[in-house]
Amino acid sequence: MRALRNQWYCAALSHEITQAPLGRIFLGEPVVMYRKSDGGAVALEDRCCHRRAPLSRGQVEGDNLRCGYHGLLYEPGGKVIWAPGQDKLPPGAQVKSYPFVEKHGWAWIWMGDPALADPKTAPAFHWYDAPGWAGCGACLDVKANYLLLVDNLLDLSHLAFLHIKTIGAADDTDPHLTWERQDNLLRGVRIARNLSPSQRQIAQGDTLRTDSTKIMTFTPPANVVIEIGAVEAGKTEADPTNRVNRKLVVLDSMTPETDTSCHYFWGNCRNYAIDDAAVTEMVLKSTSVAFDEDKFMLEAEQRIIDLNPAAPQIDLIGDAGGLQARRIVERLLAEEQVAARAAE
Amino acid sequence: MRALRNQWYCAALSHEITQAPLGRIFLGEPVVMYRKSDGGAVALEDRCCHRRAPLSRGQVEGDNLRCGYHGLLYEPGGKVIWAPGQDKLPPGAQVKSYPFVEKHGWAWIWMGDPALADPKTAPAFHWYDAPGWAGCGACLDVKANYLLLVDNLLDLSHLAFLHIKTIGAADDTDPHLTWERQDNLLRGVRIARNLSPSQRQIAQGDTLRTDSTKIMTFTPPANVVIEIGAVEAGKTEADPTNRVNRKLVVLDSMTPETDTSCHYFWGNCRNYAIDDAAVTEMVLKSTSVAFDEDKFMLEAEQRIIDLNPAAPQIDLIGDAGGLQARRIVERLLAEEQVAARAAE
Amino acid sequence: MRALRNQWYCAALSHEITQAPLGRIFLGEPVVMYRKSDGGAVALEDRCCHRRAPLSRGQVEGDNLRCGYHGLLYEPGGKVIWAPGQDKLPPGAQVKSYPFVEKHGWAWIWMGDPALADPKTAPAFHWYDAPGWAGCGACLDVKANYLLLVDNLLDLSHLAFLHIKTIGAADDTDPHLTWERQDNLLRGVRIARNLSPSQRQIAQGDTLRTDSTKIMTFTPPANVVIEIGAVEAGKTEADPTNRVNRKLVVLDSMTPETDTSCHYFWGNCRNYAIDDAAVTEMVLKSTSVAFDEDKFMLEAEQRIIDLNPAAPQIDLIGDAGGLQARRIVERLLAEEQVAARAAE
Repeated sequence: MRALRNQWYCAALSHEITQAPLGRIFLGEPVVMYRKSDGGAVALEDRCCHRRAPLSRGQVEGDNLRCGYHGLLYEPGGKVIWAPGQDKLPPGAQVKSYPFVEKHGWAWIWMGDPALADPKTAPAFHWYDAPGWAGCGACLDVKANYLLLVDNLLDLSHLAFLHIKTIGAADDTDPHLTWERQDNLLRGVRIARNLSPSQRQIAQGDTLRTDSTKIMTFTPPANVVIEIGAVEAGKTEADPTNRVNRKLVVLDSMTPETDTSCHYFWGNCRNYAIDDAAVTEMVLKSTSVAFDEDKFMLEAEQRIIDLNPAAPQIDLIGDAGGLQARRIVERLLAEEQVAARAAE
Repeated sequence: MRALRNQWYCAALSHEITQAPLGRIFLGEPVVMYRKSDGGAVALEDRCCHRRAPLSRGQVEGDNLRCGYHGLLYEPGGKVIWAPGQDKLPPGAQVKSYPFVEKHGWAWIWMGDPALADPKTAPAFHWYDAPGWAGCGACLDVKANYLLLVDNLLDLSHLAFLHIKTIGAADDTDPHLTWERQDNLLRGVRIARNLSPSQRQIAQGDTLRTDSTKIMTFTPPANVVIEIGAVEAGKTEADPTNRVNRKLVVLDSMTPETDTSCHYFWGNCRNYAIDDAAVTEMVLKSTSVAFDEDKFMLEAEQRIIDLNPAAPQIDLIGDAGGLQARRIVERLLAEEQVAARAAE
Repeated sequence: MRALRNQWYCAALSHEITQAPLGRIFLGEPVVMYRKSDGGAVALEDRCCHRRAPLSRGQVEGDNLRCGYHGLLYEPGGKVIWAPGQDKLPPGAQVKSYPFVEKHGWAWIWMGDPALADPKTAPAFHWYDAPGWAGCGACLDVKANYLLLVDNLLDLSHLAFLHIKTIGAADDTDPHLTWERQDNLLRGVRIARNLSPSQRQIAQGDTLRTDSTKIMTFTPPANVVIEIGAVEAGKTEADPTNRVNRKLVVLDSMTPETDTSCHYFWGNCRNYAIDDAAVTEMVLKSTSVAFDEDKFMLEAEQRIIDLNPAAPQIDLIGDAGGLQARRIVERLLAEEQVAARAAE
């Protein structure tokens, strides 16, 4: 499939990785994840080297993973250390072990050449567990190409339409938008003034008009961080009469499953009511409602694309971010191809 | 896919087209339909020119259609008249608009070259809303090639078997059958005498034996009108002792969705109890029950065909109509190919 | 698809064949089975020669089968003997009739050249209805290649893992295993001593440790008979203090539907409580629970294989049987190819 390989992809939110093995497909490859007794996380090929049963149907025993079919026992590095009926194991009695790193409550996997994997380069979504912040999030499986989600997240003009019944403001249609591009980073600043409250805000008793600043940062392969700040319309954060001072960071990372499906990991980080589990629960629920609006639209979009992938399309001013993000990905794909040919 | 393009295809029964956009796939192309404030019906490409979201997930605003993703607003001709964040629209900011005409409660679309679309040539199913008649109908999605439905409707020998528990008479197996073929029209007259009542008739307290005449008219691409008349067995309509004088027109039009699925539009027109909504409701329900028998059989037939499309088959006398209808379609397909080549 | 053709395949358990037509797909071909008034079983092509409707949607009339679409009547040999509207039938008015034989409550079909079908060579699962034995069984549809089930049944090391909550003993991991191979037969003897009781045995109040002998016999294309005997651990059958004397024969036959799905027929034959319907019911239920564990694992295995059919795998000592069975099948496939070429 068409995706960068030598990159850190999000594999899970850390809380999803437990002693119950978790199986997912990344870039067309089956991966199983589990947590060792020391808390360390492991990612192995989810395909027993014996008869290709998924190891995610097995169980964790101490630090090891037992295949649920014939009982082969794998140590965390992927080597078989027990098989039924024989002491000596044949060559090849192992599965692939993936470079895997957890940072700030997010787990990252390297599907490419392990020799190139540098844990230091894995994304650090530091807001998620930073002091003074509360993070929560989930994984949403979306039957759409992962770049459709990148487009979606970098063009927030859809807020006023797709999310008009939840998190969008009807008058958020004419923001001031600027983009800054580095080699492997793209940053947009989107300022929208005098916005009416969204339906969700109204439901929460929040009816003031606001000025909103959103800083969107894309890094390849498919991470989008959106830092959101809002103050009362026409006021500044420092103004003592300002009655709104919302800060929110939305973390997004998409990992391709197939060419037309992906895992969409999202996190919501807030700097208020950070110890209030009820607020966390409410954020999880209401964000899921809003992001399901994206899921259903993007899956419909993918089906329409599949009908005729060559159908023409136009780009609008709001697409600047998505187009540049795709260009970064395309350039890196070309570089990977050149490197692969050179290595042959 | 293999289907005539320069033809009027049924797109909907008029009552299905409202201010809630209706999306369907015709000949592999996504189409959205809605009704303007003046009552006029519109059919546009159901694929936003921006990011290819289906417009049928949007909403009608006055006479225009708003994309539910980023809010692009389309006028009824398919041109974008508003997009988020910019006043000047790029070239190509439009979707295809299809020739669309409503006649007698049925809506027809032209998927081919718009220059060739002549509204006068769209079928007129005039019984559906004629004075002295009551029409009702529905759309049934069938996972079978549309021509399997043409075969079905032109060979009514299946009534005595497939529909034996509903609308078929067990002894309706030896009708007198004649066919008349014109260039683009095929008409069959099927006379069956001394038929026992069907289970549906018996359930309605109708137990007389009848003589039945069915006039089946096929026109391309896939319309079949069946005019049904029944009198008491051995009597004439004029005979004062004749206790049966049923008249019914069944309207059928099939529009390919893919090579192995279609939309089946049907209407039932009666000349009795025309203002009785309860009768209409009963007709809708009981016809749906009978036509579901067709749907389930044709979908099973399609699955068997898919297992081995080259499996041999024989033709019986009852297939004369279906075979001639297919020949008309094949001849027109060849003509379309010749015309397409000439135009290149 | 890749499967032997000139072989007897299991088509049904005899009790499944009634006067209600039963449709199944064997080796990619649709087959309908029914029982005549004299009790004889019939297997015909499940595809009407007229419009290719499945005959399994029709009904049996005396010894004949009536198509449910247009009423064509087939005699048990597959010839059409009635069609609507005409006395003289065209050439080709018939469907394929398959050599079909029932033995001991199991029905066998020959999908290849009928001239080569010798009923004497059809498997005889004699335990199923032998005096002193009670047999019961069922058909399980499994979305996995049929050879994955052969692997499964010839490598019982999975008992201690996949079936640990039902029929497996946790310490059944080091049996004594020997194989004997003939041209078209493979037999393994698997002796496991001092086994703890399985969860199912414990649930039935059976807590003694046992010595178990399993004789597994594979014959092509895909039959596996497993004769199971158990005595109290360390004792012999003849020992008057021996408190366990279980005998069980598990019959298995797999018939490919497609390359990645099959019908799995299984039977359980016991020599105790043979007239007790409640025990039969219990055996059917608890065996279904255990075999569903296989079904779910094999379907998961097939999905993993489909992701990358070329992924490497290792063989363990327990695979000796499955590998030899596959070699027999491969040799016969090669022989069929040679014979097919010679016949051209």
